[in-house]
Amino acid sequence: MAVGLSDNPKLLPVRGVKLAACSAAIYKKQRPDLALIACDRGSNAAAVFTRNAFCAAPVLVAREHLAKTQPLYLLINAGNANAGLGSMGIADARLSCKKLALLAGCPEETVLPFSTGVIGEPLPVNKICNKFPQMLSALSDNKWLDVARAIMTTDTVAKGVSRQVTLGDQVITITGIVKGSGMIRPDMATMLAYIATDATVDPVLLNRILGEAVEESFNRISVDGDTSTNDACVLIATGKAGTGNISNMHESAVAAFREAVKEVCIYLAQAIVRDGEGATKFVTLDICGGHNQDECKNVAYAIAHSPLVKTALYASDPNWGRILAAIGRAGIKGLEVNNIRILIDNITLFENGGRSPDYSETAGREIFAKPEIKLHIDLGRGHAQYEYWTCDLSNEYVRINAEYRS
Amino acid sequence: MAVGLSDNPKLLPVRGVKLAACSAAIYKKQRPDLALIACDRGSNAAAVFTRNAFCAAPVLVAREHLAKTQPLYLLINAGNANAGLGSMGIADARLSCKKLALLAGCPEETVLPFSTGVIGEPLPVNKICNKFPQMLSALSDNKWLDVARAIMTTDTVAKGVSRQVTLGDQVITITGIVKGSGMIRPDMATMLAYIATDATVDPVLLNRILGEAVEESFNRISVDGDTSTNDACVLIATGKAGTGNISNMHESAVAAFREAVKEVCIYLAQAIVRDGEGATKFVTLDICGGHNQDECKNVAYAIAHSPLVKTALYASDPNWGRILAAIGRAGIKGLEVNNIRILIDNITLFENGGRSPDYSETAGREIFAKPEIKLHIDLGRGHAQYEYWTCDLSNEYVRINAEYRS
Repeated sequence: MAVGLSDNPKLLPVRGVKLAACSAAIYKKQRPDLALIACDRGSNAAAVFTRNAFCAAPVLVAREHLAKTQPLYLLINAGNANAGLGSMGIADARLSCKKLALLAGCPEETVLPFSTGVIGEPLPVNKICNKFPQMLSALSDNKWLDVARAIMTTDTVAKGVSRQVTLGDQVITITGIVKGSGMIRPDMATMLAYIATDATVDPVLLNRILGEAVEESFNRISVDGDTSTNDACVLIATGKAGTGNISNMHESAVAAFREAVKEVCIYLAQAIVRDGEGATKFVTLDICGGHNQDECKNVAYAIAHSPLVKTALYASDPNWGRILAAIGRAGIKGLEVNNIRILIDNITLFENGGRSPDYSETAGREIFAKPEIKLHIDLGRGHAQYEYWTCDLSNEYVRINAEYRS
Repeated sequence: MAVGLSDNPKLLPVRGVKLAACSAAIYKKQRPDLALIACDRGSNAAAVFTRNAFCAAPVLVAREHLAKTQPLYLLINAGNANAGLGSMGIADARLSCKKLALLAGCPEETVLPFSTGVIGEPLPVNKICNKFPQMLSALSDNKWLDVARAIMTTDTVAKGVSRQVTLGDQVITITGIVKGSGMIRPDMATMLAYIATDATVDPVLLNRILGEAVEESFNRISVDGDTSTNDACVLIATGKAGTGNISNMHESAVAAFREAVKEVCIYLAQAIVRDGEGATKFVTLDICGGHNQDECKNVAYAIAHSPLVKTALYASDPNWGRILAAIGRAGIKGLEVNNIRILIDNITLFENGGRSPDYSETAGREIFAKPEIKLHIDLGRGHAQYEYWTCDLSNEYVRINAEYRS
């Protein structure tokens, strides 16, 4: 169903990164469900994790390891979240890191574990560890798409993107992959994303660039308003392009790199929404005219989380009363209905407290029938602006989530 | 689909209240869609209205009229919300009050208008006014059920309840009806409810009793997290039972009356959830152990508004990981997963950071297959408690709301 996405994105290798994927029979159905990303020594990594109070075991262990040293291996499984399992979950996450480190000949702390899938079922840690020899010997720099496939759960397509930028006289590559389709809402990353570049970036700058990019990408999407316990987004800089530390380069080179990382993150974040569970519509919410950004954000959330707006979008029904009602319940004090303007694509739908005379139901239906829709809402009380991406709510969403464990 | 509700509630007449219902062809399909409730002179009324910033025109006019005088007529239509129409909506609401007042021989301000249905389409005010003579002559004290039916929109059953209490040596009656099925979430009433009693209650006490009762009933339900633009809840006391002002009676009489009003409101609020759009499960959330009530409330909201929890409930799937994830994203600082206990009905499901050893998937499936489920969650950090009612999210919800206007 993914809106405007191919299942076969062209992903460029990144010097200093090797990958492998295989099936460890974590899913009942035979499919790739285990992945390994290896980065050369000397790489730097930055990461952001879920803000859910109940982090999954791998999130706790990955955070702890990352605080101690730079990672060499990212170990990722789909099909089991290793969450809600108390001390057993932590022990299992640690055990998988330890066994991989032993085989690879590196400290345990250089392995970061990640899991996604069902919460509350014990991680099949033996099945996972048994695959380590095979995966280590299969590592190759052209397996980005294989890994993107192996980390999918309810995703319907493999999602990833590459960008190249010239910094000084070197072309550097940024490649990112992401999984995520349900349990998606802002508050950090709300999915798993792995992004790597062969540029040389020191850890402080890498962290800042990732933080800013996440704020403008993964924190601006919602499929269903639920925040996962397992979300993580990792950015690795291997330094293999030979640019030298970009902090020492001209300001414009840093800006170009920052912009490219942001572009990759926005592409990946939008890809999650386009492949949102049951999604048939990709919706851009452009909210402006708030006193401050929070006002615009709250209006965006209220619309994006309204099942009534989302089902109307699914039905291609320009039922703008539901949009108006959602704006009205966004908790903004003193909001004046007479100052609100609502546009769909470029047609004014609502102004001066009522339906616009320029608007016709026929035009509305035509726009709402498109797979990509832009809602522009002007609150008419200030200059703040906020953009946000969401999808519709279909029967398919209910079917997927009612049947997920059966 | 209504969970545990009959379509034919026994509703007792209330002395001093007469009602009528008819079809004014506001709906395309022929069905009763217009109602009138008349209360004798000398009645007192209290009302609470939606907190949505964009009130519908009838809410604005009803509030204005109620501030001036006690009402004699409540005029209610289904099928059209008279909302999002700017000054035309206000003019139409006023016109309907004026025409009814003219025929009934009373001031315009003694008529309160109410509308529910589609937002943004002009109110067919002539169709409504043409029915006034017929409705005025049909007024009778045994038409509560007819009115309950006439105000339905996506409701599948007529909802109402009666209670009788002895105050001093008089038996007084309280009868209430309600409509509401979608666009339901706390923040005042989120539906239309009309409750009348023949007790004598002064306006100040009546307001206080209604406010308290709404807080413990209509503000504790959610079907889909959306707040309507048209919600209203009215409590009328006609004084026809001859009790004398209950403010002058023994404290215990006031308490008995207050308790009975609360019971009626809780019954009606739960009836909305039981008849929630597409609902197949009625779920009680009993949240305790918070530092304060707001913590418990936020956990209740996060669970009740989680599409993932709601689809799992629909599937009779005890996917408690989703419940845990919802608690974790409720925004409670320093929440300790090891102190959380989750019980379904009386079985402990989760404790000490993991699945309880007493819990079996079979037992969980058995409980989740029931039409009525109680989730008890102890946050393990204080003594506050909060109860809340919600329903599941089914394919039927999506179908109803995707097809609502077509």
